[in-house]
Amino acid sequence: MILTCMKNNLIEGINITSKAISNRTTMPILECLLLECNVDGFVLMGNDLEIGIISKVNANIKRNGQIAIDAKVFSEIIRKLPDKEIYIEVDDRNMVIIKCDMSEYKIMGQSGDEFSRPNVIDKNDGYIIFQSELKDMIRRTIFSVSVDESKPTLMGELIEIKDGFINIVALDGYRVSYRKSMIGQNDYIKVIIPSKTMNEISKILSSDLEAIITLYVDNNHILFDLGESIVVSRLLEGEFYSYNQIFSNNYNTKIKVNKTEILLGIERASLISSVAKKEPVKLSIEENKIIITSNTSLGTAHEEVITEKEGEDLKIAFNPKYIIDALKAIDDEYVNLLFTSPLSPCMINPIESDEYKYLVLPLRLNV
Amino acid sequence: MILTCMKNNLIEGINITSKAISNRTTMPILECLLLECNVDGFVLMGNDLEIGIISKVNANIKRNGQIAIDAKVFSEIIRKLPDKEIYIEVDDRNMVIIKCDMSEYKIMGQSGDEFSRPNVIDKNDGYIIFQSELKDMIRRTIFSVSVDESKPTLMGELIEIKDGFINIVALDGYRVSYRKSMIGQNDYIKVIIPSKTMNEISKILSSDLEAIITLYVDNNHILFDLGESIVVSRLLEGEFYSYNQIFSNNYNTKIKVNKTEILLGIERASLISSVAKKEPVKLSIEENKIIITSNTSLGTAHEEVITEKEGEDLKIAFNPKYIIDALKAIDDEYVNLLFTSPLSPCMINPIESDEYKYLVLPLRLNV
Repeated sequence: MILTCMKNNLIEGINITSKAISNRTTMPILECLLLECNVDGFVLMGNDLEIGIISKVNANIKRNGQIAIDAKVFSEIIRKLPDKEIYIEVDDRNMVIIKCDMSEYKIMGQSGDEFSRPNVIDKNDGYIIFQSELKDMIRRTIFSVSVDESKPTLMGELIEIKDGFINIVALDGYRVSYRKSMIGQNDYIKVIIPSKTMNEISKILSSDLEAIITLYVDNNHILFDLGESIVVSRLLEGEFYSYNQIFSNNYNTKIKVNKTEILLGIERASLISSVAKKEPVKLSIEENKIIITSNTSLGTAHEEVITEKEGEDLKIAFNPKYIIDALKAIDDEYVNLLFTSPLSPCMINPIESDEYKYLVLPLRLNV
Repeated sequence: MILTCMKNNLIEGINITSKAISNRTTMPILECLLLECNVDGFVLMGNDLEIGIISKVNANIKRNGQIAIDAKVFSEIIRKLPDKEIYIEVDDRNMVIIKCDMSEYKIMGQSGDEFSRPNVIDKNDGYIIFQSELKDMIRRTIFSVSVDESKPTLMGELIEIKDGFINIVALDGYRVSYRKSMIGQNDYIKVIIPSKTMNEISKILSSDLEAIITLYVDNNHILFDLGESIVVSRLLEGEFYSYNQIFSNNYNTKIKVNKTEILLGIERASLISSVAKKEPVKLSIEENKIIITSNTSLGTAHEEVITEKEGEDLKIAFNPKYIIDALKAIDDEYVNLLFTSPLSPCMINPIESDEYKYLVLPLRLNV
């Protein structure tokens, strides 16, 4: 294999494909990137067996071939090279020769035959969405994914396509995060993607408002096609909790409140609540204001925030982290909080759309 | 104790005095800041028994008094408060009441009597230096301090005042870092300051070119007077290595080289050298160029950098980290490297001054 390419192009490919490199593995080949020159061009591949990434790099190919090389060593060397043309050659003993300006490296590679290639599925019937929109949907939901290994299906995000919408949902048994977006198709798709995949894909997604991504799904895999790069991930097996039942638009108390003010109030009150001890923050919803209090071994906190209220007064307690996570994911200036009783979940909604909704279970108040 | 003060003033005092708060201690009082209102004004104090800091905060005092309060809790609460006036009151049961805008906290404090106050020494015969200059001297030397607890005197930096100069020196048995600066006094002072103190003081020092600091020394302590804040530290006991003997201006080989080019070359070559295995980087000094090579189980690296040479050709090997640390601390475009033999230390010098010098011991080459 012989090629030349510009450093910045190679670095971009390394950055993307390295997201599929395992840090903790007993198989050295999983710590490698595959470099391959073929009729399609020069591609890099990374694969940790859960997520696989293939990225095209603009290059001038002199001889086809392939080699697996330790991703960390390769990436550190390329990163430190001058911002110039890089020459890469692999000899018949799998020695990788890297030359750039006054620098020359010879690094032992491994035969590309040992590399486990990402499982590229057929590209039929794809779903097109803007990259910036998908990135936003992930950011606003991913924090609710469960970390409890005894409930593996909750360790992923649901992607559901139906009735012209794509919905992304994450829930961990204490809260639900839901975000929807219009999509041009009416098919019915329901798959669970590991949260690691969603995290890594969101780092690769462009914020450029024009950039699109196409999703392809088969029984066991999802493929994200970004144009120059594709990401393939296995799906999580199992049935996702039927989240729709637990959202209800009924309420006995509804407040409209400035998002930043209530977020800061709850954050401040939670400073004296121990996360480890699951110490609650209490909300007392009164006429025109909400009183946020916390009372722990450290001391007491008392906060007041102006609100507009509909319905009954209410006292309710929460693990403050769950409310804070949801409020932080919201960009709107004002939000609605809907309650039915001190033992029922609180729903957080935008004022004038149904683009997202959050549900948080309360903690039982010790009276 | 009752006072009001502006949030930003209080935060500044907390930031400075918190640097003397111990993270790992079995004595809860060492995790506290002391707040005190007396005839001199409102001051905060932190003290971990090695380093103590006292900082004045602009405030409107209504009643004198003092209280010790958990530094982390206090700092987090104040940090999250709105950017407004803060009211602090301590009642006779050591309850600290903090009010700001719509927020109110009550936090249990501890009697100030239990707090161990910093050991403020007499302010006689101080040494005045610009804060920015001291900050720069610390940055350029501190990385050479030893972390070997069996040689406690090397775990500090030497501050030496003689012949109208202040010298700061750090050495760990493998390398020496030296930086000098003019000072208006001719006394003779030689003290060893713990590296933690030097690190913390350098974070507090202003980069403002006008700001000065005054140093006061007694047998066991050094006091840094920054105006609004003072830092007191214990000194390390023992005799500092007489570093002057090991610097020599004799050489058999001298090169002038672009600092950035040789730094990047050594950094790149060291990428394939394991720090844990102490794998060397080799320098081969030839006519007009220096060849930097490394040859390890990972592969080989070869770098060339243009130089101007005086004297003999030379092959020598180093732990690359030591050379890299020294070169990174230098801002000059070109530096001199002076060698006498493959087994003698290399001296790194500026081209046209004697403001700093670095000495690095070579590694024995396996032939």
